[in-house]
Amino acid sequence: MIIIGEKINGTRARVAAALAQRDVAYIQGLAKLQAEAGADYLDVNAGSSPDKEPEDLAWLVETVQASVNVPLCLDSSNPVALEQGLERVKQTPIINSISGEDNRLKNIIPLAKRHDCKVIALVLDERGIPTGVEGRLITARRIMEHIRQNGLKDEDIFLDPLVLSVATDNSSALTVLDSVRTMRIEFPAVRFIIGLSNISFGLPARSFINRVFLVMALEAGINAAIIDPLDQEISGTMLAAELLLNRDRFCQNYTRAYRAARFRVQEFSSLDKVNNIIKG
Amino acid sequence: MIIIGEKINGTRARVAAALAQRDVAYIQGLAKLQAEAGADYLDVNAGSSPDKEPEDLAWLVETVQASVNVPLCLDSSNPVALEQGLERVKQTPIINSISGEDNRLKNIIPLAKRHDCKVIALVLDERGIPTGVEGRLITARRIMEHIRQNGLKDEDIFLDPLVLSVATDNSSALTVLDSVRTMRIEFPAVRFIIGLSNISFGLPARSFINRVFLVMALEAGINAAIIDPLDQEISGTMLAAELLLNRDRFCQNYTRAYRAARFRVQEFSSLDKVNNIIKG
Repeated sequence: MIIIGEKINGTRARVAAALAQRDVAYIQGLAKLQAEAGADYLDVNAGSSPDKEPEDLAWLVETVQASVNVPLCLDSSNPVALEQGLERVKQTPIINSISGEDNRLKNIIPLAKRHDCKVIALVLDERGIPTGVEGRLITARRIMEHIRQNGLKDEDIFLDPLVLSVATDNSSALTVLDSVRTMRIEFPAVRFIIGLSNISFGLPARSFINRVFLVMALEAGINAAIIDPLDQEISGTMLAAELLLNRDRFCQNYTRAYRAARFRVQEFSSLDKVNNIIKG
Repeated sequence: MIIIGEKINGTRARVAAALAQRDVAYIQGLAKLQAEAGADYLDVNAGSSPDKEPEDLAWLVETVQASVNVPLCLDSSNPVALEQGLERVKQTPIINSISGEDNRLKNIIPLAKRHDCKVIALVLDERGIPTGVEGRLITARRIMEHIRQNGLKDEDIFLDPLVLSVATDNSSALTVLDSVRTMRIEFPAVRFIIGLSNISFGLPARSFINRVFLVMALEAGINAAIIDPLDQEISGTMLAAELLLNRDRFCQNYTRAYRAARFRVQEFSSLDKVNNIIKG
């Protein structure tokens, strides 16, 4: 399971402020904490201002790389900003992201090819997010055809089947899970990634829904997720899921992460609560 | 999903003490709290002392029924104790449990037939717990054949595929999930139940593993679980899983349970933590 740490994101107010002030300590702090928590890649997003993004992304890449030895996931749809980032990376990065939209295919795939990097491809195009499993499969085929024609290898691609909120479409989780299962058969060398938190948009106690969906997605066969590696609930859930799916020989990863305090559980004694209620 | 509340269990010290002292308030408190938390059945277990169990189970049944209007799950392998309970129940109960062991088949199935009640059947026999999916299927077939020959209906049976700890057998979760999927096809009218917590025996932070396994089991098709309905983490996980599996139209159960405070989530802001660490 490839964990992409999501915290260095310029669309968040605190990160945007750190970026504006060139606050090296804050950005490097986010980088170090995520790396220590087990992130395999760090997503870096410099916000979406067209003037500043190229310079800001270049600064982010240099600042992060000066503090940790973890590859980056360059999070931008702007080819100029991506070029700035790609010229500075020390390890093979992931570009986040392309889609089936013409301009992204034309502008970003050649960049990826030239810099020999990995790419996240969102299964959508000019017409938006496709409907159902079949719609996603058709769009994925079109994107993969273009990618292959342009000389990128399947094993460098992460397909994102696109998660919609279960609040607006009750079948949206099942659609994503079935899409992953179906596309894995058709594209066995491709990897699959999801953006977790969209699933719970508009609902209360979102973290319950996010965690449960992560379990289901892991079982369905995703290989990567953009998450908060500092969220111990998410980390514990992921480690427990891999353990149960027999992907953690002798429970080593789970027990090591536990010993390293990478997750903790509040052992909730409801019997104490019962005693209090009855006696109190 | 049928929730069987597990808290009135005489093998636990506090319940054993309440039983010995005929502490009506404590037992009825456990009953009311579980019923309010949404339990569909209440498990009642009077411990395993051969002398006292029949009388204790009779007292438990009457005490619980005097406070809540929820059917019971009579948790005993002792036909004499079961008979005492069965004579007192006001609603169709579940007998917990029979197995493929001769004495249980011979002594308990006639009781279940005579009192027209439901039965949990553990997929094991004199030789112990069968190995793998195929072993479980063979044992389940033998038990179901006996059950049908004795005039019980498939729809009154809950098969328990038997969960072993993933610490001693790394494939044990997958075995149970595959067993449920396989047996559901062969016995479509039968229901499936699991005892959740065995899965994590011997491992740290067990509640993470239990919750994740519950999600996987719900997806695989279990219909019932013996759990602590007061554990908000378990309740939230179950409700979120049913929501994602499109078994909760318009997210009604999830949002109603949330509004009724049947579960709460600690919205953990790791960004605050990051700020504290960096600034502190």
